[in-house]
Amino acid sequence: MKKAMFSLAVGALALAVGVAAQAQVTAEDMVKFRQSGYTFMAWNVGKIKAQAVDGSVPFNQEQVAAAANVIAAIANSGMGALYSPATLGETGWKETRLLPEFFEEQDKVREVAMNFVQQANALQEVAAMGDQAEVAAQLDELSKACKACHDNFRAE
Amino acid sequence: MKKAMFSLAVGALALAVGVAAQAQVTAEDMVKFRQSGYTFMAWNVGKIKAQAVDGSVPFNQEQVAAAANVIAAIANSGMGALYSPATLGETGWKETRLLPEFFEEQDKVREVAMNFVQQANALQEVAAMGDQAEVAAQLDELSKACKACHDNFRAE
Repeated sequence: MKKAMFSLAVGALALAVGVAAQAQVTAEDMVKFRQSGYTFMAWNVGKIKAQAVDGSVPFNQEQVAAAANVIAAIANSGMGALYSPATLGETGWKETRLLPEFFEEQDKVREVAMNFVQQANALQEVAAMGDQAEVAAQLDELSKACKACHDNFRAE
Repeated sequence: MKKAMFSLAVGALALAVGVAAQAQVTAEDMVKFRQSGYTFMAWNVGKIKAQAVDGSVPFNQEQVAAAANVIAAIANSGMGALYSPATLGETGWKETRLLPEFFEEQDKVREVAMNFVQQANALQEVAAMGDQAEVAAQLDELSKACKACHDNFRAE
């Protein structure tokens, strides 16, 4: 709990003040790193969905936990530092869909980001315990957290 | 069947547990996921290098640990499942540089992959302890592990 609270604090801080964890990174690379993080998370969400929700692949707790570790680690990596207004309209691997509202609604961004980190941490916890139904339920919460950002700050 | 047998083979190669973790993934997406994982690791390696080696950014143990967690989580995510001969010459975000030798030298691949996971796990451990010099030394070991794969299995 203490750890979760700390992670939330770090996440919020990273978004609020753009903690300088990195040396200079170009806007193109910021978008590339963002897209890479989300795409790699998508692969891991897909594995958990196949195993815990769809049942198209047998449930394997070790694999689900490894996938949840990836999602939590990426969620806690301080990606806020990759969001600069200079990245609007920029092309990384492909053109970013980030909307200008991201830089205009900081309270909303903070709320959405903190919830995303919280749900990712919770998924890591239930995946470590290994109850398939709990994993499926928490994956649904994580999906809602992802969607909240897409609905508010990503072009369709 | 051929595909299923191959999945078992790569699972063993990459220290995965030996069964397909994912539902069907296209060759294009396999390459995209691989490139995303390595690119996101590169961002995190860059942060650790800036803070622990170059000193261009002040050393921050929490940020370094978070970056090392990402690298270890990705290293342990079973990326072997993303290596199919069908991906040779395939374009994900960009054309893959993977060489055919990857599928012909399984012992070497296993050795390189195991060392990569081992060095990533060691980096996560020293980053959690927070000694800057130890982090720098272990990052160097990780870099050598990355280079071993590039030198053997990636086109220049």
